[in-house]
Amino acid sequence: MTDRPNTPLLDRVARPADLKQFSDAELIRLAHEVRNETVSAVSVTGGHLGAGLGVVELTVALHAVFDTPRDKIIWDVGHQCYPHKILTERRDRIRTLRQKDGLSGFTKRSESPYDPFGAAHSSTSISAALGFAVARDLGGVPPEGAGDAIAVIGDGSMSAGMAYEAMNNAGHLGKRLIVILNDNEMSIAPPVGAMSSYLSRLYAEEPFQELKAAAKGAVSLLPEPFREGAKRAKDMLKGMAVGGTLFEQLGFSYLGPIDGHDMDQLLPVLRTVKQRATGPILIHVLTKKGKGYGPAEKARDKGHGVSKFNVVTGEQKKAPSNAPSYTSVFAQSLLEEAARDDKICAITAAMPDGTGLNLFAERYPSRCFDVGIAEQHGVTFSAALAAGGMKPFCAMYSTFLQRGYDQVVHDVAIQRLPVRFAIDRAGLVGADGATHAGAFDVAYLANLPGFVVMAAADEAELKHMVATAAAHDDGPIAFRFPRGEGKGVDMPERGTPLEIGKGRIIAEGSRVAILSFGTRLAEVEAAAEALSAKGITPTIADARFAKPLDRDMILDLAANHEALITIEEGAVGGFGSHVAQLLSDEGVFDHGLKYRSMVLPDIFIDQASPADMYAVAGMNAEHIEAKVLDVLGIAQIGQQTA
Amino acid sequence: MTDRPNTPLLDRVARPADLKQFSDAELIRLAHEVRNETVSAVSVTGGHLGAGLGVVELTVALHAVFDTPRDKIIWDVGHQCYPHKILTERRDRIRTLRQKDGLSGFTKRSESPYDPFGAAHSSTSISAALGFAVARDLGGVPPEGAGDAIAVIGDGSMSAGMAYEAMNNAGHLGKRLIVILNDNEMSIAPPVGAMSSYLSRLYAEEPFQELKAAAKGAVSLLPEPFREGAKRAKDMLKGMAVGGTLFEQLGFSYLGPIDGHDMDQLLPVLRTVKQRATGPILIHVLTKKGKGYGPAEKARDKGHGVSKFNVVTGEQKKAPSNAPSYTSVFAQSLLEEAARDDKICAITAAMPDGTGLNLFAERYPSRCFDVGIAEQHGVTFSAALAAGGMKPFCAMYSTFLQRGYDQVVHDVAIQRLPVRFAIDRAGLVGADGATHAGAFDVAYLANLPGFVVMAAADEAELKHMVATAAAHDDGPIAFRFPRGEGKGVDMPERGTPLEIGKGRIIAEGSRVAILSFGTRLAEVEAAAEALSAKGITPTIADARFAKPLDRDMILDLAANHEALITIEEGAVGGFGSHVAQLLSDEGVFDHGLKYRSMVLPDIFIDQASPADMYAVAGMNAEHIEAKVLDVLGIAQIGQQTA
Repeated sequence: MTDRPNTPLLDRVARPADLKQFSDAELIRLAHEVRNETVSAVSVTGGHLGAGLGVVELTVALHAVFDTPRDKIIWDVGHQCYPHKILTERRDRIRTLRQKDGLSGFTKRSESPYDPFGAAHSSTSISAALGFAVARDLGGVPPEGAGDAIAVIGDGSMSAGMAYEAMNNAGHLGKRLIVILNDNEMSIAPPVGAMSSYLSRLYAEEPFQELKAAAKGAVSLLPEPFREGAKRAKDMLKGMAVGGTLFEQLGFSYLGPIDGHDMDQLLPVLRTVKQRATGPILIHVLTKKGKGYGPAEKARDKGHGVSKFNVVTGEQKKAPSNAPSYTSVFAQSLLEEAARDDKICAITAAMPDGTGLNLFAERYPSRCFDVGIAEQHGVTFSAALAAGGMKPFCAMYSTFLQRGYDQVVHDVAIQRLPVRFAIDRAGLVGADGATHAGAFDVAYLANLPGFVVMAAADEAELKHMVATAAAHDDGPIAFRFPRGEGKGVDMPERGTPLEIGKGRIIAEGSRVAILSFGTRLAEVEAAAEALSAKGITPTIADARFAKPLDRDMILDLAANHEALITIEEGAVGGFGSHVAQLLSDEGVFDHGLKYRSMVLPDIFIDQASPADMYAVAGMNAEHIEAKVLDVLGIAQIGQQTA
Repeated sequence: MTDRPNTPLLDRVARPADLKQFSDAELIRLAHEVRNETVSAVSVTGGHLGAGLGVVELTVALHAVFDTPRDKIIWDVGHQCYPHKILTERRDRIRTLRQKDGLSGFTKRSESPYDPFGAAHSSTSISAALGFAVARDLGGVPPEGAGDAIAVIGDGSMSAGMAYEAMNNAGHLGKRLIVILNDNEMSIAPPVGAMSSYLSRLYAEEPFQELKAAAKGAVSLLPEPFREGAKRAKDMLKGMAVGGTLFEQLGFSYLGPIDGHDMDQLLPVLRTVKQRATGPILIHVLTKKGKGYGPAEKARDKGHGVSKFNVVTGEQKKAPSNAPSYTSVFAQSLLEEAARDDKICAITAAMPDGTGLNLFAERYPSRCFDVGIAEQHGVTFSAALAAGGMKPFCAMYSTFLQRGYDQVVHDVAIQRLPVRFAIDRAGLVGADGATHAGAFDVAYLANLPGFVVMAAADEAELKHMVATAAAHDDGPIAFRFPRGEGKGVDMPERGTPLEIGKGRIIAEGSRVAILSFGTRLAEVEAAAEALSAKGITPTIADARFAKPLDRDMILDLAANHEALITIEEGAVGGFGSHVAQLLSDEGVFDHGLKYRSMVLPDIFIDQASPADMYAVAGMNAEHIEAKVLDVLGIAQIGQQTA
C-alpha cells in the first residue's frame, strides 16, 4: 500500500460523471494519474499492461465527453480496459484483476453496467455497437437509457473478417455509430504530432467534409508503414482511409488520424462527434502500446502480458518452473519433425508466441504462416495445403478454433483432408477465465466423421502425439493439451507415432476402473494413491483417443470392473459421451455397470488458478476419490461426495 | 433422350484437353452447346440453374486456356459448377445431378480430380486457392503436378469476412494466384460492352500497369451500381477496384471489368494472365446470372434453384404439397408474435427466402436485418440487440450457424443473452447432400451453459416453440426444425409457450420407451404401429428439450421400462448423450437398463431424398422397429436388426 501512486484528482472520481468537474488541463493530469494507477495495479496482479497504457488518454477523454453507462463504450478484446475499470466504480478492486473472486481481466456484463458488452475474443466490438445502435433506434430501451454506441477496436482486430462484415452492415444501415480505430503501431514523430494537433483543431471547427480533405494532405507527412501479416489490414485501412475510400464506400465518415495521447486533439474531436454525428463515423486514433511506462515501451511486445513486476525497475517476478510448458514441448517436437520432413508446415492465427510457433517461424520461415486474426481463413488455407501435398499443423487455442468451426467441418472433415490440429489451452486456463476456456473442442470435433481426436496425458505423450499427427495421412487429426507446465516426466529422445485408437493401461487394479482422457491423469493417480490407503486399488487407463475409441480396452475395462469412471477436461458431449454411446450400443448397460462420466460442469467458471477452477469443476484428486467411494457405495467420513 | 440438344462440338470433348483443338470461333459455339446441355440436364434433375448459365463462357474459356486438373479451378460455393462438370469427364452422368448415387450438385474432391477442392458453403475459394499456390511453391507435389490455382468467387461471396481474410493473407504472401471475381449483378449495356472489348484487347497486349489506367477511364461508362445489404460488399470492391485501391493495397494486380459472356475478351485476358502473372491477380468479370435461357433471365432469382422444368416453357414441375413447410410455419408464427410484440426483430445472413424471413422483411422492414453472408457478425449483432432490449430471432440453417459458433459461445452464451436461434434445415436435407446436413447443432449448443435447446416434432410444435422462444427472456434459446413439409397436423390458432424443460408423453405403453427429440417422432409412431401387431406397445415420448432435460420424465421412463431408446436427427454428443449423462449420474445404469441412443451414423451421407438418406442412417420406422425387437431380444424373421 505504501507504493501507491499519488493521485489527488483520481481520488475525487467515484464515477465517470465526476470527470465533468475537471478542466481540460485537469483531465490531462488525471490521465497521468490513471496511468500511474494502472502500472501500480498491474505490478501486483500481473496481466495485460501495454494495451491499457496505450489508451489512458482515450479512456479519460471518452468518459469525460460521453455519458456512461447511458452511452455504451465497447472495448474490442478488452485487454485495454483496466483504465476504464479504474474510472468506472471498480478502482477499489483494481488490485484483484484476474484473481479468484476478483475483477475479470476483460470487460464483463455481469461485473458492471459500464461494461455493456463483454469481450475477450477479438473483433466483435463493431457488431456489438451496431446492435446497440439499432436497438436504441428501435426503442429497445426507454429513451433515457439509450445513448451512443462506441466501439474501440485495435488495428490488429481489423484483420478479422468479422470486423469487415460488421462495417459492411453498419454502413448500409446508416445508424449513428462511433467506431474508434485504435491504431497503436505507428509511432508519432514530432512534426506529424504537430500537424495532427492542427488537424484536430480543424476537425472541431469545420464540417467533416472539409476535414477529410485536410487529413488527406496531412497524412502524406506520416512515415509510410510497411508491415507484414496481421498488420497488413491496418495498412490497407489506413491507405484507404486517407482517400476516404473504404470508409466512404462503406457509408462511414472518417476522421483522423489524430494523436491518441494528446488530449488537446482527443477532447475536441470527441465533443464534435458527439454533437454532430448523424450516421456511422470512424475516428482514426494513433496510440503507442505501453505508452508512458519505460519498461513496457522498451519491451518487444510493449508489455502486452506481464507477470507481477517491480514498478521502478520493470523486472517481472516469474515463478521458477519445474518442467517445460506444454506449448514449448509442442513447439520443440514440431521442430524436430519438421527437420526430418520438409512437407511439414505450420499455421497460426496471429498467435506465434502463444502457440510457440515463433520458433518454427525463425527456423523455417518459408513453411510458417501467420494468417492474422483469421481463423476461418487459417483452417481452410490449411485444408488446401493438405490437398496440395503438404502436412499442415494448424495451431490454435481450443477457444479460438471455435471461430473456424464451419471450416473444420466443411473444408477439412467432409473432404477428409489430413490437417493436423494442435489445440493448445485445452481445458480450464486460469487467469483469462471463462472466455478462454477450452471446454468444447472434444464434443465439437469427435462427432465429425473421419476425425482422429487425441489428448495428451503428459508432455512425453504430447511429443508422441505430434509424431502421430505427422505420420497420419488419412484424414484430419487433432491433439489437445493444456496451458501451463508439464508434469516433469522424462522426455523421450524423439516422438514415436502411437497406434491410432489404442489407449494404454497405467495401473492394473480391481473393482473400479478410471479411464482418463488428457492431463487429469495426474489427479487420477493422486486419487488412486489416496484410495489405496483405504484398500481400494483402481485400474487406471489413459484413453489417448476420444476418436476412434479403444473399443477393446474399454469393453474389457467394463467387463472386468464393477464400476467405470471416465474423466476429461471438457464439457458433456465429448469423450465420456462417446464411451457411453459405445457401452450402450454394445448392451453393456443392459445388465448393469456403475458408469460415471466426470466432465466440466454446466457453468462458465470465472478466473482463478487452474487448480482452483478445477476445484470448482469438481475434477481434482479429492473429487475423483469421492466419486470412486460414492460409486462403490463406501461411506466417507467428514467429506461430502462430489 | 429425344429432347437432347444438338451438340456436335461438345460431343468431341471427352476431357478438357480436347478444347485445345478448337479455334476461338469454335469455342464460342462450344459455349452455346454447353449452355443448352446445362439447361437440358437441369430440366430433368432440377437444381441450381442460373449460376451455371452465368459462367458458361468463363468455364469454357478457363478450360481452353488452362490445363486442368494440373491447374486447379476452385469454384466458390459450387452452385455454378454444372458446365464445369459437363466438360470434365462427367457429361455422361450430368442427368444424375443431385440424385441418389449421382453427381453432387457441388464440386467434390472424391468425385473427380477436376474438383481439387470441394465446396457448398460460401467464400472459401480464395483461402483454398492460396493453399494450393503455397503448397505448389513449397514442393508439396511433384513439379509436373503443380499448376496454377484459380479461385472463381461471386460478388455475393465477397461479403463474407473470410474472403477478406484470405485476400489479406494472399497479398502479403505474394504468390502467383488468380482470383476471378464473378460479378453477376451488373447488366452490361452495349456501349460498355464495346468498351470492354476494346479494353480486353488492350489487356492482352499491354503490361498490366497501363491497363489499369485504361480500366479506370473505362469504368466510368458503366452504370453506377447502388444496391443494399449483402450486395454492398461488391459495390465497395468495385469502387475500390477501379481506383485499384483495395486490390493494390492488398498486393493484388487488378484487371477488369470485362464482359464474362464475351469470349473475345475472356480468352485473351486469361491467356495473358497465364503467360505473365507473377503475383496475385484479380480479374473482374461481369456476368449475368441465368444468361441465355429466357425463363431464368426473367425470373426474380435468375433461376437460382429450380425443380424439374419444361425446357420450352420454363414451367417448373412442383409436387403438390400436403402440408405447409416447416420454414413457412416458422415464418408465419414469427409474424404473428411480432404483431403482438414490437421488440421482436429478425436476423438472416443472406438467406431471406430460405429462412422465410422475406415475409418478415416485407411486413416489418425496420425490424428485419439481412446482414449478408456474415454469420459471425450476424450472431454478435443479435447478441447486442438482445443486450439493447430487443428480442432478436437469429434465423440460420444448422450448417451455416457453424460459421458463427464462437460468437454463439463468446457473445451469446457466456453473456447469457436472450438470442432466439431459429435453426432451419436440421437433420439430413436431401439433394444438397452432406455439406448442408444439420447434424451437429444439438451437440455444439446443448453443452453451452445456460442454453435452452428445443426440437419440434411437428409443425404445431414448431409454432409453440416460436412462442416459447419469444417469451423466454432468461438466456439464449434455440429451436430446430427440418427442411421440407410438416406432417399436416391441425394447427393451433396461436402458439402457446411451452414449459421450459418439460417433455410430453405421446402414448403409454410397456416394456420399452422410445424418447424422440425432433421430427423422427412420426417414424417412431409408425414403428410403434408395426410393433403393436407383434404384441409390443412402446411408450412414446417427445422430449421437446435437449436442454434442460425433462429429468423427471426421463427417470420415470427409465424406471418403468425394461428398455429406453432415444432418437434424434443429429450426431452423437447431442440429445442422447445428455440423456446418458443424466442416467449415469443418477446411477440408473448401476442395476441395468437397456439403453440405446439412435443418432446419425459416423459418416457423411451423400445426397438422396431425405427418406433415402435416413435409410442410410438407419433411422426410419423399420430401423426403429428392428432396434426395439433387438433390444428386447425378440428374434425377427427375414429382417436384419439395425
